[in-house]
Amino acid sequence: MHTFNELVKDFAERFSVSHFPKEPANLYEPGDYFLGLGGKRIRPVMCLMGNELFGDIHPDAYHVATAIELFHNFTLVHDDIMDKAPLRRGLPTVHTKYNESTALLTGDAMLIVAYEYLNKIGATHKQQIFTLFSRTAREVCEGQQWDMDFEQRTDVSLADYIKMIELKTSVLLAASLQLGAILGGASEGNCQHIYEFGRNLGIAFQVQDDYLDAFGDPEKFGKDVGGDIRQNKKTFLLLHALEVASPEQKQELLRLMAENPADKVARVLDIFRACDVDGWAQKLKQSYMDKALAHLESIAVLSVRKKPLIELSEFLVQREY
Amino acid sequence: MHTFNELVKDFAERFSVSHFPKEPANLYEPGDYFLGLGGKRIRPVMCLMGNELFGDIHPDAYHVATAIELFHNFTLVHDDIMDKAPLRRGLPTVHTKYNESTALLTGDAMLIVAYEYLNKIGATHKQQIFTLFSRTAREVCEGQQWDMDFEQRTDVSLADYIKMIELKTSVLLAASLQLGAILGGASEGNCQHIYEFGRNLGIAFQVQDDYLDAFGDPEKFGKDVGGDIRQNKKTFLLLHALEVASPEQKQELLRLMAENPADKVARVLDIFRACDVDGWAQKLKQSYMDKALAHLESIAVLSVRKKPLIELSEFLVQREY
Repeated sequence: MHTFNELVKDFAERFSVSHFPKEPANLYEPGDYFLGLGGKRIRPVMCLMGNELFGDIHPDAYHVATAIELFHNFTLVHDDIMDKAPLRRGLPTVHTKYNESTALLTGDAMLIVAYEYLNKIGATHKQQIFTLFSRTAREVCEGQQWDMDFEQRTDVSLADYIKMIELKTSVLLAASLQLGAILGGASEGNCQHIYEFGRNLGIAFQVQDDYLDAFGDPEKFGKDVGGDIRQNKKTFLLLHALEVASPEQKQELLRLMAENPADKVARVLDIFRACDVDGWAQKLKQSYMDKALAHLESIAVLSVRKKPLIELSEFLVQREY
Repeated sequence: MHTFNELVKDFAERFSVSHFPKEPANLYEPGDYFLGLGGKRIRPVMCLMGNELFGDIHPDAYHVATAIELFHNFTLVHDDIMDKAPLRRGLPTVHTKYNESTALLTGDAMLIVAYEYLNKIGATHKQQIFTLFSRTAREVCEGQQWDMDFEQRTDVSLADYIKMIELKTSVLLAASLQLGAILGGASEGNCQHIYEFGRNLGIAFQVQDDYLDAFGDPEKFGKDVGGDIRQNKKTFLLLHALEVASPEQKQELLRLMAENPADKVARVLDIFRACDVDGWAQKLKQSYMDKALAHLESIAVLSVRKKPLIELSEFLVQREY
């Protein structure tokens, strides 16, 4: 058994090699650059944790974990193009440092190399693992499409948003755990429980993300607090505020969004507070956490085996940064 | 046994269904649109032919063939973005009809769905088929990168160009045949022969492509004859001309490329003819065809089984359009 932090360290070390051929350098060097920007490697670690919940880490789990991290980075490289994002972790994105064609093709190659890692695993669970991996990969693309669609729409409901977040964020966390669990020899029922744990945890994580973007402590948060508000991003907070605000508050909110005054962030936050959006978000997060933990409870293994997953939940959902 | 045309018809019919979920429509409808633009479906048919060379068509061959055609279309959608191509088969490309983000994400989803088809096959050849498919997919990306690199370089040799064409075009033809051969139960030696047949055929195909773009009959060719010359595209013809031209001819060629006069195509063709580039190209094509056919010869099956592959070669390499 390993703690969450031990697994983070272990995976980060193993992952910090080049995953690509040398040539053509203009294709693969940008891939190495992007992977070198780092990150917590949460998803591959969740794969290892999903495995260790049920048994010793299977050597194939490292291949699957690597495939997951490469897939995740493929989505980031392509999303950065679509979002025209100049920076990632404070450094230039691939399409900014190189160009869009390079970012497009490097992302493609990264996805293919992810599948090459996945193909290294033994035959026993191959069909099942490929099925879950590809379904999830497709769902993440679907989530990105809904996200882009929603930017153009004014009638997005909270339910629509949750469906989008599930696809864009939650399913990969859920699948990472389940892919590990499959290698750990989990029963089908336990695979469902660990998937549902991850899916609900993912939604709680996104609620916290949206919450911190509005109400976070700028000292701790690192990113620019109020960024979502400035960009009129449809978040848990905004969508809920639009649903519960009085007609006057709603009109004021829509006016602030349309007119972008200099004090927009402060005034939107005033309305959010007046509507108790902050208290509501904390309760919503807790309700998804409770659902997640209930699924974890239902898995009949020694409770010591669950400890790293509880540490992970706390890391993801209690964080202030 | 089926003829080349029977297999084309059979596959086209089977392939003309939707390969995607219904929603989000903005992700999948563009995929259906692009696949609906048609095409000869040469690569999946080569997979079926590679199978039939050795035995009856295995039901899994249709899954692999579908994966190949989806992969090929994924590369076309993404290449069209990189090349800023407005049209494909006379109709708007995905990024033109919709937008770049849609084309990017639709391409991604198409690649993932290709892997979903591949995962439908039985366990026996799965490892081998995934390995060859992914290696080839990666090589095709590498070929596209070299192609983009070469546009920026002035020192591209004929050998460099052939290496690029092998990756960008030939390996997918070769792998399509071999993937079918694996399902047909071919020995490892025969798998190599059919791969080499496809690889050499692919180069001969590209020589013919470059030849027709310069010397084709505009009535038959359909596309704009002289397009490569107008765009200063590095082709078999140009690279050979630059190697064999006299210092005066070379200087004139470089001047025409730099200055783009109105009669550029005619004057470049004059130099090509003076250097016997057309005769050389026909001989080069024949030499790759001979190599291809020698590999086909080496495969010990009834010669009647090879007939569709010979029809295919003639279609690809003797065509005037």
